[in-house]
Amino acid sequence: MKVKAAVLNSAKNIEFSACEIPDRLGSGEVLIESKSVGVCGSDLHFYLYGELGDIKLNHPLILGHEVSGIVKDIGSTDLALSVGDRVALEPGIPCMNCTMCRKGMYHLCPSVRFMATPPYDGALVTHLVWPAEFCFKLPSNVTLEEGAVVEPLAVAISACQRAGVTLGSRVLVAGAGPIGYLVAQVAFAFGALEVWVMDRRSDRLRLVTSVCQAKALHITDIEKVPHTERLTGVNIAIDCTGDPDVVGWLAVQLSPRGTLAIVGSGGATCVPIPMLTFVLKELDVKGVFRYSNVFDLSVEMISCGLVDVKSLITHRMPFDESKEAFELAADPSSGAMKIMINFG
Amino acid sequence: MKVKAAVLNSAKNIEFSACEIPDRLGSGEVLIESKSVGVCGSDLHFYLYGELGDIKLNHPLILGHEVSGIVKDIGSTDLALSVGDRVALEPGIPCMNCTMCRKGMYHLCPSVRFMATPPYDGALVTHLVWPAEFCFKLPSNVTLEEGAVVEPLAVAISACQRAGVTLGSRVLVAGAGPIGYLVAQVAFAFGALEVWVMDRRSDRLRLVTSVCQAKALHITDIEKVPHTERLTGVNIAIDCTGDPDVVGWLAVQLSPRGTLAIVGSGGATCVPIPMLTFVLKELDVKGVFRYSNVFDLSVEMISCGLVDVKSLITHRMPFDESKEAFELAADPSSGAMKIMINFG
Amino acid sequence: MKVKAAVLNSAKNIEFSACEIPDRLGSGEVLIESKSVGVCGSDLHFYLYGELGDIKLNHPLILGHEVSGIVKDIGSTDLALSVGDRVALEPGIPCMNCTMCRKGMYHLCPSVRFMATPPYDGALVTHLVWPAEFCFKLPSNVTLEEGAVVEPLAVAISACQRAGVTLGSRVLVAGAGPIGYLVAQVAFAFGALEVWVMDRRSDRLRLVTSVCQAKALHITDIEKVPHTERLTGVNIAIDCTGDPDVVGWLAVQLSPRGTLAIVGSGGATCVPIPMLTFVLKELDVKGVFRYSNVFDLSVEMISCGLVDVKSLITHRMPFDESKEAFELAADPSSGAMKIMINFG
Amino acid sequence: MKVKAAVLNSAKNIEFSACEIPDRLGSGEVLIESKSVGVCGSDLHFYLYGELGDIKLNHPLILGHEVSGIVKDIGSTDLALSVGDRVALEPGIPCMNCTMCRKGMYHLCPSVRFMATPPYDGALVTHLVWPAEFCFKLPSNVTLEEGAVVEPLAVAISACQRAGVTLGSRVLVAGAGPIGYLVAQVAFAFGALEVWVMDRRSDRLRLVTSVCQAKALHITDIEKVPHTERLTGVNIAIDCTGDPDVVGWLAVQLSPRGTLAIVGSGGATCVPIPMLTFVLKELDVKGVFRYSNVFDLSVEMISCGLVDVKSLITHRMPFDESKEAFELAADPSSGAMKIMINFG
Repeated sequence: MKVKAAVLNSAKNIEFSACEIPDRLGSGEVLIESKSVGVCGSDLHFYLYGELGDIKLNHPLILGHEVSGIVKDIGSTDLALSVGDRVALEPGIPCMNCTMCRKGMYHLCPSVRFMATPPYDGALVTHLVWPAEFCFKLPSNVTLEEGAVVEPLAVAISACQRAGVTLGSRVLVAGAGPIGYLVAQVAFAFGALEVWVMDRRSDRLRLVTSVCQAKALHITDIEKVPHTERLTGVNIAIDCTGDPDVVGWLAVQLSPRGTLAIVGSGGATCVPIPMLTFVLKELDVKGVFRYSNVFDLSVEMISCGLVDVKSLITHRMPFDESKEAFELAADPSSGAMKIMINFG
Repeated sequence: MKVKAAVLNSAKNIEFSACEIPDRLGSGEVLIESKSVGVCGSDLHFYLYGELGDIKLNHPLILGHEVSGIVKDIGSTDLALSVGDRVALEPGIPCMNCTMCRKGMYHLCPSVRFMATPPYDGALVTHLVWPAEFCFKLPSNVTLEEGAVVEPLAVAISACQRAGVTLGSRVLVAGAGPIGYLVAQVAFAFGALEVWVMDRRSDRLRLVTSVCQAKALHITDIEKVPHTERLTGVNIAIDCTGDPDVVGWLAVQLSPRGTLAIVGSGGATCVPIPMLTFVLKELDVKGVFRYSNVFDLSVEMISCGLVDVKSLITHRMPFDESKEAFELAADPSSGAMKIMINFG
Repeated sequence: MKVKAAVLNSAKNIEFSACEIPDRLGSGEVLIESKSVGVCGSDLHFYLYGELGDIKLNHPLILGHEVSGIVKDIGSTDLALSVGDRVALEPGIPCMNCTMCRKGMYHLCPSVRFMATPPYDGALVTHLVWPAEFCFKLPSNVTLEEGAVVEPLAVAISACQRAGVTLGSRVLVAGAGPIGYLVAQVAFAFGALEVWVMDRRSDRLRLVTSVCQAKALHITDIEKVPHTERLTGVNIAIDCTGDPDVVGWLAVQLSPRGTLAIVGSGGATCVPIPMLTFVLKELDVKGVFRYSNVFDLSVEMISCGLVDVKSLITHRMPFDESKEAFELAADPSSGAMKIMINFG
Repeated sequence: MKVKAAVLNSAKNIEFSACEIPDRLGSGEVLIESKSVGVCGSDLHFYLYGELGDIKLNHPLILGHEVSGIVKDIGSTDLALSVGDRVALEPGIPCMNCTMCRKGMYHLCPSVRFMATPPYDGALVTHLVWPAEFCFKLPSNVTLEEGAVVEPLAVAISACQRAGVTLGSRVLVAGAGPIGYLVAQVAFAFGALEVWVMDRRSDRLRLVTSVCQAKALHITDIEKVPHTERLTGVNIAIDCTGDPDVVGWLAVQLSPRGTLAIVGSGGATCVPIPMLTFVLKELDVKGVFRYSNVFDLSVEMISCGLVDVKSLITHRMPFDESKEAFELAADPSSGAMKIMINFG
């Protein structure tokens, strides 16, 4: 079957081309017609620089891993899905045989095939074949655009779980981009009493404080914030910036036995936490990478209104303007939070 | 009551002088005759530099917090202790009223009075008054010198607990000094299948491998060890060096979801873990500071032979030669591990 | 100082009498003027039968342990409280020296002095002396009657913590009395997606479903509910009835690795869970007894509106009619949930 | 391919017959020649009564699920196994797609295919086909008979993990049969300081105390043991009897916040724990069913000598005398612990 894909050949070079996908579905597979694909920071990084961390773009790659669609065909009749179902796709397919998979941490599977991570293609394509087990049906009150936010919401849920947010937590979130925006709301859903969100951009802070009770911390220059200035009783900090200066500053704010979860990645730069601070307060610092076993919860949170993801979507572009969508995402003056690429 | 103390007036300046302690014991207190005091790295640091981290020596201070002694008098008859009992002293007295105390983490009590930490004096004194609740009776098969090792053993237990060592763990211990020597043995007692100990000093490695099944990693220059060289399946690393280069190297060795516990303190230097490594492997990094609720276990471990602490004590000095004991500890060519200062 | 107390001399025999309390406060103590005392099931049990479980009423006893009041005097100036402060009293004073206290589980202290538990008197008295550390200041938006609900709310918080309620939980609560009413709301605050409350009384079910999204399960006869009837995906059950039939029925509803927390006590009757069910599903069953370290959170939950406790209070009686308050509580036709005894 | 099997047609009716297994291996499969099969209590129950709990024997069934063998053929060359490898077989094959599998608790997979559990055949057959991923290579110092004990040892490991045994635990094990014998040793490997094993049979107690430091509790009649008699500081109890009287007695021995793990199944009888005891001590009671993710650890424990399983094997029978092996197992006067059925 011929499908149309937006292919990134090299940095900033996206071309549309026809690709072939199998006509015959495997027994556990379904054929998905893509409907909405969100632009993520990692997609943008590949688009702009042709690389992400250690991963180079050596071959043409289809971007996009925040994706919803409609089931057009099913590989066998014993599946929980039917033709016409609206679904969110969990973008990583683990081997389910290795140690990490067997222990329930399949996101750390060394042979996971994750969308838009070389050599695996993503979802900026009209149709794709996916295992039914990694498609999550959307309730009728969840739109297809919201379905494409299930993935970043899963990241936010996983971050709060790793950080141990619970009833009574006081949470400091660094970064008011899409992940920070979602983490703040998820922290409240876990029972946080207070959530602060810090960012240099006041427009982003306005957006997150408009959807939840989070308090904005507008910080123009982290170096100028005195290290002795301390929020009251912050026991959890969640970094969604990957900025080393910010991470170090977060550690200083934490109360003893506090937890710092790092979602953003600073590449090769080091975690700049003074060891003495670290030891004397017995801090926990935890890396957060993707998620396991939370897609169903992520769908439910949207469905039952525990989180508002609609206002996150600031821009919409048709599939044919995928390149323009990335250019828009790259422009800080655009005010873009989540740009949604919609299929006709 | 007049007692004789070894007082540190300023860096390298120890003088013996007579001090006064109360004649009348409070109802929960006991009078202890000091018998053995171990020299710890933090004592040595105060001796050599007159400071430790942020803490300056502004007033004369009695050093020593690894201490055993004999009960000479009791403040009330309802105590679990009797005159003549041989005891190990837990050196920190928490307030038991603050949030951390109430939650069972009394070692993080902001108003803890800890021996040999200004302004609180330590145990290099012939007699001292101590709360009975923080004196732990030594069984008859535990010597007074071993009783003075209960404290550093408590640090090692706490480090393994925080690190989550359990049956099947594979543990990499950095530093074969007294803490590393104890951590290696305690890791086996928690059920570790393999323990590696790394150090630059082969004499220290020989000592630890003579008392347990730990494997020695003789590393002459951490910068020259290739970062891609990986031990097999190390899921826990425990740093007892405080050396930033070592900490970074440990993080690289860990398998996904591994835990790195940092016992040693590197002062103001930063935890040099590449953030990308940290996030992609979802590492946990945990600070370890002292201990809570493990002194009884520490005594029992020595008593039932789960740990050998005798060979740790390489040198013995009489109380009157306390200054010489510190000079010996400061000399790397002495081959000293734990120097025990014994009272007559 | 002379105070007036409602003293239970024997079952159903309450008399008012003058008692003496110390004129001089200890350094950490405060003098409290009682303002509101809630009637609890255990108070009622003592009133009706002169005993509770194994505990007999051998001496006259002042009942009441859900109490708010006003600080009238302070024992020292270094306290966090001032004269005039409105406070909720944590009714158990632990020794803070035993193993359980040191580990942070002070509610299991064997020598805890708990209000209205022989030989310790409760709060149905005009004034009482209490340690400042166990008085929790009420914010201005929390009424004194709400302050008297801080204690049962602490029980509900502790039950949900022990049961492990978190974001995504599906919780089945047995019993729509005051504890079940609070547990249902607290479960939502912890992030539960669905909460069912079961009871035989439809008036109580109406009350709880009027303050939160809980679903009512009106069960007229537990023996007639087929054991194979299963709610969907219930992973946590919390028993607030102490009824053995109910407990067994809850266990059957749970999904594998589910948790059953038992708050109510069935006295000498046994936990009637079929062992095969128990083993094949690898259930966790956990006893819940009072609480530690949650009074501050309990106050905050009321203050920030995470829980509605106002509608719980169905009846109010003046202190002089304490006996009538207990008679009212004993009458199921009264429709009483929480009866508040108010002081002038 | 024709193989020879010992088939249980109905209670006490074992016949040898030829069965057919596929000639062609699937890509992840291996062909195993059976070498040793241990007789388990559940096998014996099927043999004697033709049923186990709710499970009836409606069709002929091959028994045996504690099995070691030799790899005779491999389905593809990319496997970690080679022809000639000696292996222990994990007897349950989970779906790896359901919620429990994805969360790492694959032993609770509702569609697990478990050996010797209708309709799935067991290992009393000369050859069988098995997924390579569920075959665990035995090191050269582990015999094939020991390899057949890897399975019950996995049960013991899982029981201690669920019960939370760790350094310092004091553990009471009920039942000195094969599981109790292994649990006692595994508890020490997890760091238990003291382990008591109770049984009515002194020969079994002698066996377990000959391989580890466990203390024997010879209890002739549980009803006659006074409920107030309390061992010192038992914080974990592990029931390997399934006897309700024993379970109730264990609960009484536990200290506050103790954990009772139930490995044995009492069928339809109820957990006879007085609810008041349960609530006042805040006990945890946990069901234990099989295991996940511990077969590699089980093999390693034998290999590195952390557990002695040799003395567990009291009797050996050739495959052709499988029926006699079950009769022997059924005879309490035989003194049999583990009977090993060996293939030529």
